[in-house]
Amino acid sequence: MGESTEQMQPKKAFGWAARDSSGVLSPFTFSRRATGEKDVTFKVLYCGICHSDLHFIKNEWEKDWASSYPLVPGHEIVGVVTEVGGKVEKFKVGDKVGVGCFVGSCHSCDNCASNLESYCPKLILTYGSIYYDGTTTYGGYSDIMVTDEHFVVSIPDNLPLDCGAPLLCAGITVYSPLRYFGLDKPGMHVGVVGLGGLGHVAVKFAKAMGVKVTVISTSPNKKKEAIEHLGAHSFLVSRNQDELQAAMGTLDGIIDTVSASHPLLPLIGLLKTNGKLVLVGVPDKPLELPVFSLLMGRKIVAGSATGGLKETQEMINFAAKHNITADIEVIPIDYVNIAMERLSKADVRYRFVIDIGNTLKSST
Amino acid sequence: MGESTEQMQPKKAFGWAARDSSGVLSPFTFSRRATGEKDVTFKVLYCGICHSDLHFIKNEWEKDWASSYPLVPGHEIVGVVTEVGGKVEKFKVGDKVGVGCFVGSCHSCDNCASNLESYCPKLILTYGSIYYDGTTTYGGYSDIMVTDEHFVVSIPDNLPLDCGAPLLCAGITVYSPLRYFGLDKPGMHVGVVGLGGLGHVAVKFAKAMGVKVTVISTSPNKKKEAIEHLGAHSFLVSRNQDELQAAMGTLDGIIDTVSASHPLLPLIGLLKTNGKLVLVGVPDKPLELPVFSLLMGRKIVAGSATGGLKETQEMINFAAKHNITADIEVIPIDYVNIAMERLSKADVRYRFVIDIGNTLKSST
Repeated sequence: MGESTEQMQPKKAFGWAARDSSGVLSPFTFSRRATGEKDVTFKVLYCGICHSDLHFIKNEWEKDWASSYPLVPGHEIVGVVTEVGGKVEKFKVGDKVGVGCFVGSCHSCDNCASNLESYCPKLILTYGSIYYDGTTTYGGYSDIMVTDEHFVVSIPDNLPLDCGAPLLCAGITVYSPLRYFGLDKPGMHVGVVGLGGLGHVAVKFAKAMGVKVTVISTSPNKKKEAIEHLGAHSFLVSRNQDELQAAMGTLDGIIDTVSASHPLLPLIGLLKTNGKLVLVGVPDKPLELPVFSLLMGRKIVAGSATGGLKETQEMINFAAKHNITADIEVIPIDYVNIAMERLSKADVRYRFVIDIGNTLKSST
Repeated sequence: MGESTEQMQPKKAFGWAARDSSGVLSPFTFSRRATGEKDVTFKVLYCGICHSDLHFIKNEWEKDWASSYPLVPGHEIVGVVTEVGGKVEKFKVGDKVGVGCFVGSCHSCDNCASNLESYCPKLILTYGSIYYDGTTTYGGYSDIMVTDEHFVVSIPDNLPLDCGAPLLCAGITVYSPLRYFGLDKPGMHVGVVGLGGLGHVAVKFAKAMGVKVTVISTSPNKKKEAIEHLGAHSFLVSRNQDELQAAMGTLDGIIDTVSASHPLLPLIGLLKTNGKLVLVGVPDKPLELPVFSLLMGRKIVAGSATGGLKETQEMINFAAKHNITADIEVIPIDYVNIAMERLSKADVRYRFVIDIGNTLKSST
């Protein structure tokens, strides 16, 4: 039997992959390219499990991004550099580094020129995309990564690697819109919808920016956690009409992390004039947009997707300075299928992180 | 028979009113308050017919704003001052003035303090609202207006009154979002959806700001008009997939003037990264919001409703300076019911303006 293309590259690699849309991951031997001139090769130590990993594994975004199998997920990846190419300028062996949602872009479009690689039309995702050399990209549920240094961020020494990993997707996804939409001014009042992997980090970043935070959730039992543990200033149950009514017109902006279909009208009602509702979750169907309520306060509904490399590094440095990390549950790789099931029921507080360094071992 | 409250105020007034939601207007004798200390009284010369007049007459916005009858429409009103109160500072007898969509606000909320009266929660509309004194407000399909000077704008001498009148609603409704959303920078490229009363004025303002304009319409037969008469740079038929595909990602922003339900997805697709789709029409049902397409370019969908008094005066001055007026069809008052029928079929290029001064005569 001939080798598959997955085995044809020089660096032997091992990870866990989905082979079809059943949602099950299993051990997978593959290969990665040799360290190129501008590449950083690093040993993966931790990788967060993002909710989008689950969508990709099950091919649930087929309409917009069809999954290809075998698929090695993972785009909240941290580790230690083991080799660098001859033209690498920012990293050296032994450095702690991270890789987020993408590993390539065109470097020539307006978005790339504005440090907004995440909006480049030729974006190469960390897994499931076709790289420049024609190979499929594989993510961080694996032992090593080989990545162009442009898409690698430096992890400051004081940022723990395990609970820092989720910042590379969950962190930048909420940090970027707080900055871009100007919801980062001390004294502002911002709502965070959904207290999951993204939401709990959004509360932490907003608070560190000096912003007053109200958590909005369908689950009344998250109130104690939101206020006492995360330090949110207040909490609204999104189905409680009296609570919503009392809070109408009080928020400068909202970061809405919910992927499930949900009504926007009550959220728009919570905004002040000129308020901004920023969606960072991706519902699989269009949401209903109540236009009258937008007009009557010059309000906006916006979308935002991760952030560029410059801002990701800025976010990581900000997190390190303000001791912001994700609340995580560290798991061994062979727990990953159970973790996916629990994640689909939102049964995690708030992010699973796979201990790749200590638990991912090839049996060959 | 006792007089109704409509006849109890000191100033005799005459106009045309809807008596119920049938859509028919008929002559109506009523009264207005005496000129108060801060009031400007003016003889109405022209009044534009706004599409929202038709909605109000037929009580089609009942869910958000129930109409009360008798209803005297009209909020694109110009005329000449005949009397001013003792504390009026900005106007004198003989001045040319205009009144737009509202005649009162609280003067104490954040919106009022920021010259954004149109978003004041206690906004008093020019017709169909309850004024401070408990009376119902009546609009400009009438011979005189008595209005607090704060809500009166000055009409520069070189701005014709007939084709200037529609600027007081249609004009400010498109001028304000062009300014607020930063779509007014020379060299930008802005789309205007719908070539009606609002749309044709939007093209004129955007062009005067140095912006490249693409008109987007369902009617291919408006192309010649848009390009040759209004000077738009290009034209897209909104149902022509090939044209839309070729223009994807080219617009900095869009002013969408369409009130009918319509798909937002193709419009969002036309926007560049960070592009802004601003809705100024009010569909009677929620629109479908395709979230993925917003996220993939950090795009926004916004609403905007008229503008404050400071900005309305600025818009009028800008229009006078750049010779911007509406394209109108002047009609006598007794044509108003036919005009409403034609308006409901979009059979006007582009705004009806009632010649109140020469055609509105009380038979009593």
